[in-house]
Amino acid sequence: MSFASDIELRALPIRQAILDHPFVTGVGDGTLEVAKFRHYVLQDYVYLIEYSRVLAMASARAQDLDTMGWFARLLDETLNVEMELHRGYCAEFGITTIELETTIPAPTTVAYTSYLLQVAHQGSFPELVASLVPCQWGYWEIGEYLARQGEPKEAPLYCQWIQMYKSPEFAQLADAIRVLMDRLGDRAGADEREAMGRAYMTSLRFEYLFWDMAYRLETWPV
Amino acid sequence: MSFASDIELRALPIRQAILDHPFVTGVGDGTLEVAKFRHYVLQDYVYLIEYSRVLAMASARAQDLDTMGWFARLLDETLNVEMELHRGYCAEFGITTIELETTIPAPTTVAYTSYLLQVAHQGSFPELVASLVPCQWGYWEIGEYLARQGEPKEAPLYCQWIQMYKSPEFAQLADAIRVLMDRLGDRAGADEREAMGRAYMTSLRFEYLFWDMAYRLETWPV
Amino acid sequence: MSFASDIELRALPIRQAILDHPFVTGVGDGTLEVAKFRHYVLQDYVYLIEYSRVLAMASARAQDLDTMGWFARLLDETLNVEMELHRGYCAEFGITTIELETTIPAPTTVAYTSYLLQVAHQGSFPELVASLVPCQWGYWEIGEYLARQGEPKEAPLYCQWIQMYKSPEFAQLADAIRVLMDRLGDRAGADEREAMGRAYMTSLRFEYLFWDMAYRLETWPV
Amino acid sequence: MSFASDIELRALPIRQAILDHPFVTGVGDGTLEVAKFRHYVLQDYVYLIEYSRVLAMASARAQDLDTMGWFARLLDETLNVEMELHRGYCAEFGITTIELETTIPAPTTVAYTSYLLQVAHQGSFPELVASLVPCQWGYWEIGEYLARQGEPKEAPLYCQWIQMYKSPEFAQLADAIRVLMDRLGDRAGADEREAMGRAYMTSLRFEYLFWDMAYRLETWPV
Repeated sequence: MSFASDIELRALPIRQAILDHPFVTGVGDGTLEVAKFRHYVLQDYVYLIEYSRVLAMASARAQDLDTMGWFARLLDETLNVEMELHRGYCAEFGITTIELETTIPAPTTVAYTSYLLQVAHQGSFPELVASLVPCQWGYWEIGEYLARQGEPKEAPLYCQWIQMYKSPEFAQLADAIRVLMDRLGDRAGADEREAMGRAYMTSLRFEYLFWDMAYRLETWPV
Repeated sequence: MSFASDIELRALPIRQAILDHPFVTGVGDGTLEVAKFRHYVLQDYVYLIEYSRVLAMASARAQDLDTMGWFARLLDETLNVEMELHRGYCAEFGITTIELETTIPAPTTVAYTSYLLQVAHQGSFPELVASLVPCQWGYWEIGEYLARQGEPKEAPLYCQWIQMYKSPEFAQLADAIRVLMDRLGDRAGADEREAMGRAYMTSLRFEYLFWDMAYRLETWPV
Repeated sequence: MSFASDIELRALPIRQAILDHPFVTGVGDGTLEVAKFRHYVLQDYVYLIEYSRVLAMASARAQDLDTMGWFARLLDETLNVEMELHRGYCAEFGITTIELETTIPAPTTVAYTSYLLQVAHQGSFPELVASLVPCQWGYWEIGEYLARQGEPKEAPLYCQWIQMYKSPEFAQLADAIRVLMDRLGDRAGADEREAMGRAYMTSLRFEYLFWDMAYRLETWPV
Repeated sequence: MSFASDIELRALPIRQAILDHPFVTGVGDGTLEVAKFRHYVLQDYVYLIEYSRVLAMASARAQDLDTMGWFARLLDETLNVEMELHRGYCAEFGITTIELETTIPAPTTVAYTSYLLQVAHQGSFPELVASLVPCQWGYWEIGEYLARQGEPKEAPLYCQWIQMYKSPEFAQLADAIRVLMDRLGDRAGADEREAMGRAYMTSLRFEYLFWDMAYRLETWPV
């Protein structure tokens, strides 16, 4: 079994827990309170900025010119195109750009993005790549799962969100990074493969915590 | 007012919240459940390992030879002396070395240590130093506060813990790193001083969350 | 005087030494042996790849979203557009893509790019920016200087090279990064300003050594 | 063949070139001009400081607690013991501490230490370790080789230098780091093993250039 298939199989219970989380099912059937989704969208904006730093680190540390260039393109599109789309989507929720820019990252947002950045600096390049997959692939998995279950017609903004992540463009992106992890994992020694597995699993757990953070409207207690 | 005095003043409500946290008061009056302290001690062992990586980063990035050497000594003592003391102290709780070495870091432990390591790589050296102060200084503050209130004679292991952190040796260490932050803050430009303040405050908030993690016996939900 | 003007003034003797270097004057009057220029172009290709890693680090460590996005765009353009132009230009010298991709970096190329990457990781973000200016601004300065002296009509490939770097697009790019350094320098404390100055000066000295490396057709002695 | 034996075999011509370099043979027969050795000693002082940063990075990025602790001890001894011995040895050459502390790193010193630090941040931990071996092991190899040829009795300071590096303590240190590289190399995948080999070879080439820098009394041309 390839590296990616193996780790995804071992990760099945966590992946299922994400699909079953009330935030995710609430988006799927349109019953999620708007306040919770709003909290998610604000935190996701902050997340994307730090996530972009990890993409930049990937371009800085990639082992060949093609991979450097691929991450550079993704980074540029994320910062100079996606962020703008994000701001437009937020506007439909009545969230202003100022609100976005003054969002205080919740503890779980700081935790997850710090973890990714820490791996990006301390780990090897293959570990960095493995830490990115749960986010890219996980969003596609959620989008595709919810779309298959039937979209919440009465909640058009949730529909729009689902469509974005089940789109062929997003699927292709998620697949590309999964393929890269797979290739690096198959070529790695046993120690590095284990470290890649740990990075993947920890990121995936943070994916779960991130949905939970939004659902609990988490803020700093002090 | 010096940089350190200023930030400590602004941080007063969070510092007070730490001193008032049931974990800390429970150590102080000896009423804290042993299971919670045990959870703390295990997570603290994991924390210390990652904390040592930050000390190593401080030695790697320090701006002069004396500061490099100071962090190198602290790093060596932490890894090659303190860790052994920690294992001895744990043994008194019936915690074996194997138990210590197989401890799974709780979410908050991963969050806090990732944050410190992320600052150590992404930030400037003065930011790195500022991020270390809440841990060093905060432990001394707790030790000194609890000792002043009278030690819990009927809980000898908690007494021992309090004595360790109120000791002159630990006070001197905490003071040295605070003085370094102060000096760097006073010499920094406005932007960097602000970034140092953010690093200090976020670490301090994670100190609170760390006690809370122990008190809640936090583990990963998935 | 602004930070940039001050450092440029202090750097004048080195900047002049670069303009007077036989490699640069040889391009300007068309007398430079093609073998030396060929060596330069091959080493410059290797240099650009590592330089891109530094741009990626700049995007990863920038202090605000606009600056992250600006470096991301520059990185993407460098890797996904400029490199292709470079390959096209090389083809006119009869240099194949395979030759480019199998170029062994000369000692000075490894030295200069390692220095930049080392600063990008060990230094602060303002130091990183300062280390980039001598390359960006220096190329414009050379292009503009040689163009003013009259281009070597009989050496059309050298003309083309001069025109590229004196172009308004390149001038604008060089100016943008100089303005960023200036702003960061003016806001920095005295220690950081000194560190920025050191990074600028060392990069500038490596610029001189890079032309000299090409002129001497430098390779590894062992 | 083990990873270390294999790479050392492939590196034989460069290792021999080092043993044959006039700086090394001049130390061995006592004929090396003192000015050249003085230049070496000053540059080596600067080198050691930056080398210590790499040891700190090794402690920060090591994969287990024992290795972290081992590098921490080496780092502490280097900064807090070796540097003092170095200053004492320099005093015998009439080199004052002020002279040491104001030494301007030569181009090759900046090049080599930047290369090591760049690998320490950009590469994987096994690459970092591989980059350290040529210095540790190479000094022992030189010390042992020159001692076997008979020490230059009429040059007592050169004798002292040879004895330091052929000493069992130094041999043990060099061996420990070589064994670590060997273990990591044997457990690595093919790509990583290749990257480790590149790091080893480039460091070894810089070792040669370092002796040559001292012999040429290299300084910055601008």
